[in-house]
Amino acid sequence: MSLLTVGTVAFDTIETPHGKAEMVIGGACTYISIAASYFTKNIQLSAVVGDDFPAKELDYLKSRGVDLEGLQIKKGEKSFFWAGRYHTNMNHRDTLVTDLNVLANFDPILPAPYCNAEYVMLGNLTPDIQMQVLDQLKAKPKLVVLDTMNFWMNVAMDSLKKVIAKVDVLTINDEEARQLSGEYALVKAAKVILTMGPKYLVIKKGEHGAMLFHQNKMFYAPALPLELVTDPTGAGDTFAGGFIGYIAKTGDTSYENMKRALIYGSAMASFCVEKFSIDGIKGLTQERIERRVQRFKEMMQVSL
Amino acid sequence: MSLLTVGTVAFDTIETPHGKAEMVIGGACTYISIAASYFTKNIQLSAVVGDDFPAKELDYLKSRGVDLEGLQIKKGEKSFFWAGRYHTNMNHRDTLVTDLNVLANFDPILPAPYCNAEYVMLGNLTPDIQMQVLDQLKAKPKLVVLDTMNFWMNVAMDSLKKVIAKVDVLTINDEEARQLSGEYALVKAAKVILTMGPKYLVIKKGEHGAMLFHQNKMFYAPALPLELVTDPTGAGDTFAGGFIGYIAKTGDTSYENMKRALIYGSAMASFCVEKFSIDGIKGLTQERIERRVQRFKEMMQVSL
Repeated sequence: MSLLTVGTVAFDTIETPHGKAEMVIGGACTYISIAASYFTKNIQLSAVVGDDFPAKELDYLKSRGVDLEGLQIKKGEKSFFWAGRYHTNMNHRDTLVTDLNVLANFDPILPAPYCNAEYVMLGNLTPDIQMQVLDQLKAKPKLVVLDTMNFWMNVAMDSLKKVIAKVDVLTINDEEARQLSGEYALVKAAKVILTMGPKYLVIKKGEHGAMLFHQNKMFYAPALPLELVTDPTGAGDTFAGGFIGYIAKTGDTSYENMKRALIYGSAMASFCVEKFSIDGIKGLTQERIERRVQRFKEMMQVSL
Repeated sequence: MSLLTVGTVAFDTIETPHGKAEMVIGGACTYISIAASYFTKNIQLSAVVGDDFPAKELDYLKSRGVDLEGLQIKKGEKSFFWAGRYHTNMNHRDTLVTDLNVLANFDPILPAPYCNAEYVMLGNLTPDIQMQVLDQLKAKPKLVVLDTMNFWMNVAMDSLKKVIAKVDVLTINDEEARQLSGEYALVKAAKVILTMGPKYLVIKKGEHGAMLFHQNKMFYAPALPLELVTDPTGAGDTFAGGFIGYIAKTGDTSYENMKRALIYGSAMASFCVEKFSIDGIKGLTQERIERRVQRFKEMMQVSL
């Protein structure tokens, strides 16, 4: 079993009502691979950084079982940098800075062993790069999950639709589902999107939870209401990492198991937002994760 | 078993992206009593209208088992009137007109049989009037539920807190929970509010569902995603009517049963929003209600 993750490994500067974190570790691929590492160890990472990225952070990823053969380190260049500010309503944020740096010319050449990955998590990135990764795969993976965002719908909708057509699961938020489908009601939006290629659609609703759509079925996983949300950055990526990590661990891509994966993803995301950067998902134990999943279970359990 | 409902019986003019309904039947008490009537028949209504209120609408309420002895009809006066406009995001609305009319001098004198009600639903209304109703009760009811809104927090917080202190269940929306408690995080807000008197708190989140808080426990009922939301007016009242109606029917005020009541309330609200005014909750059958509850069950069911 191997899980290939593709996306950014980067620096973030984040302002929230609870403080500011400058030049901290971020990036979709970072969050995804750390979250997934609590479920499976054979993780392959395809990404690019500059030589400004701290060696000790790469060592941390390695210590979590993440293979870095696919990580390109560009000498004399800078890593991708994003700065953003959240307001009281943590569901909305303003992007203050986006410096592509090494990402501008990222060519995701996969090491040979990566080309037989059984599970593939395409983190939020240029659709063309996501497609280049798929094109290098030698065997059809058991499951391909794609995460994207409104930015790519605005500037590269055609490329995005081409890659969406090739994946099994698409994860986007509610506004993005509306934009992609042209339908306001999420049930209608889901119906449209499920004709575009993916057999499963996950709609992420931040503090309002996440929904899974498949055929005519739908499942609703609430978010865990928390006493303190410090920093929502990476919550969607962490969710995705927990989601595909759980599926890879169990080897079960059925709808019933994906429902469980949605809860595990939500549980991982609930840890993520409690602290700045990746601090919330570092140093977790299986016991803490299972205890949190039990809290979801209590919150959802009713005999009807 | 008797269920006393107090609130407005009124006219509404409603604009939504899907159309306009002028001078249609509205009012918290109207929605509450109709919704509750699918669960229990001994419903007592305390409200006031002008002589402009159509007799056939009162006949409809009677046909649903609603006792109108407590309905005051003021000759030569006009019924309460509210006009509002919803935007694409149906969670927000603008109030265009509020004509108190008969409501300005409403003195809720309860007929003798009402004073021994076992279940009491205080619909959204002046806190002083809600208190006057409680003061007339001769025996402690099995359950008192109070619904209110931000307007009363802005203009009558002291009176509101006095009546909140005397009820078992408070139902408000998420913004109101924040305003009432001074806490942004709903878990913290709930903790504060549960020290104000009520043993149970229901936080209504519109299209994002509803939450039940009790001691250190919480339960999350999703809203049913619908293909078309025509008019959200009365959804909260319909929810409350289904909630207390189900509890009155089962005679069980435990936390476990309240979780079920939350689903039944949400199911009733999902019918309400499909049509303008009370049209969505007229002519339902037990079978349709149970089928809808089963859809909630499917949406929430996961084995963990």
